[in-house]
Amino acid sequence: MFESWLVRSREQVEDALAAHLKEIEAGLGTHSRLADAVLYSVKAGGKRLRPILVLEACRACGGRAETALPAALAVELIHTFSLIHDDLPAMDDDDLRRGQPTNHKVFGEGLAILAGDWLATHALGLVAGVRIGPARMPRLLQALVDGTERMIAGQAADIEGEGRPADRELVRYIHRHKTAALLETCCRLGAICGGASEEPTEALARYGQHLGLAFQITDDLLDATGSVEQTGKQVRKDAAASKQTYPAAFGLDESRAQAGREIEAALQALAPFGSRADRLRELAQHMIERSA
Amino acid sequence: MFESWLVRSREQVEDALAAHLKEIEAGLGTHSRLADAVLYSVKAGGKRLRPILVLEACRACGGRAETALPAALAVELIHTFSLIHDDLPAMDDDDLRRGQPTNHKVFGEGLAILAGDWLATHALGLVAGVRIGPARMPRLLQALVDGTERMIAGQAADIEGEGRPADRELVRYIHRHKTAALLETCCRLGAICGGASEEPTEALARYGQHLGLAFQITDDLLDATGSVEQTGKQVRKDAAASKQTYPAAFGLDESRAQAGREIEAALQALAPFGSRADRLRELAQHMIERSA
Repeated sequence: MFESWLVRSREQVEDALAAHLKEIEAGLGTHSRLADAVLYSVKAGGKRLRPILVLEACRACGGRAETALPAALAVELIHTFSLIHDDLPAMDDDDLRRGQPTNHKVFGEGLAILAGDWLATHALGLVAGVRIGPARMPRLLQALVDGTERMIAGQAADIEGEGRPADRELVRYIHRHKTAALLETCCRLGAICGGASEEPTEALARYGQHLGLAFQITDDLLDATGSVEQTGKQVRKDAAASKQTYPAAFGLDESRAQAGREIEAALQALAPFGSRADRLRELAQHMIERSA
Repeated sequence: MFESWLVRSREQVEDALAAHLKEIEAGLGTHSRLADAVLYSVKAGGKRLRPILVLEACRACGGRAETALPAALAVELIHTFSLIHDDLPAMDDDDLRRGQPTNHKVFGEGLAILAGDWLATHALGLVAGVRIGPARMPRLLQALVDGTERMIAGQAADIEGEGRPADRELVRYIHRHKTAALLETCCRLGAICGGASEEPTEALARYGQHLGLAFQITDDLLDATGSVEQTGKQVRKDAAASKQTYPAAFGLDESRAQAGREIEAALQALAPFGSRADRLRELAQHMIERSA
């Protein structure tokens, strides 16, 4: 039941993305390979968890998922932009992403930077196409901008924290901003598109933040203990780069325990929603299980 | 008269920028030097022509400049983001900007990329704070996004055109997108904030586009014939990098003639505005004179 829902939701996102990518390709033309660079990373796939989260948060508030679709695409494009820039030599210097060469390995650093810039800009523009009451549009734009700004601030703290002794307060800041802020934003966007009032919007945002923290701690654990086959990307990079991670700051056992506590807190935030949040509950369980 | 207007307009922009930068600094905190990197480039100054253009386009449509102020700041921050990224080693590789070390020379490439990302995101979010009828907000956001996307596409064509034989059609595409699109956008934003209907908005947009082309051709000419003292940046870089420029594609004389024709076309677009566009006319003359 959960699995078939996940497949259907992913198809809904992939169909909308494919249609939108055709528009992007036609609009960008052929005066440079910018369109190729943009499409390469968006098509590289991934689990599309963020847009699915937007759609399901909208549903949990009683809205129609179709209303939230442009916002869902926007978040996926913001996520793609962040991956392209994070992989650059001046940042995390990754050659491999989802088992494929990273954007700058294929198109060069200049075009990779511009592809990320273009995706971020375009994503924020998608807000203009969401069919909600005009009074809610500034809130929607502000929520997406806030989440993206916090994500960027988290990445800045991440690259500047490299090589320094593990610092628990700094690790918490980095994870809360670099990863959790965008998942929190997914929930907030879905709630706004679903017509939710302040209280349920903030409850879903808390769910998204705890989910995001669990997600990033799990990611740290996979880098520390997983394989290339399992993750589709290079592993042991964090330790090699002396990154600020949960395992480095808290140890493996405490990190696993903390991930579990974050999932508990995420589930608690969903209590007011009753059965309407069942899919979001299952999604949280699903995300923590990938580290098992 | 024109000079004192220019000084007053610049002060209005600088005051609003200074107040806004304080908010930015407080919001970004101290977990990284991101705030320092952002503020460094915004404070590095420049002529603030783009925000002044937004304010004056708003006035020419009968609006109050204060209404357009957040949009004016947004354009200046977009411009600053583009300068930071354009100066990177993977792009134009510039060490000097307005007589000072470029952002990545001071903060490193990683932080410079993130400072640009943050500024672009933040700038688009400023649209949410413009006090116009909610029905006009999606138009305003879309106009700023379109202009920024075209600017990025122009920069992509610019870096990919390096080292290729000068191509007149490609040079026109690059200049129209890389530089003219954002000046066109300034006029469009000002007109929308000023409550203008379709026709005057498009007339001002044409003015901005021709002005932008004249501006970039003049910039090419200054690089080909000016000095470091005159321009505040390195010169003869275009020829050294085999850039697609007007002088390379059309020769110096034809480039000067074309800049003059663009100014003429810009002034023609202003005809319907009568004396309300006097400052915009003087601004066009002012911009072409810096190449004399």
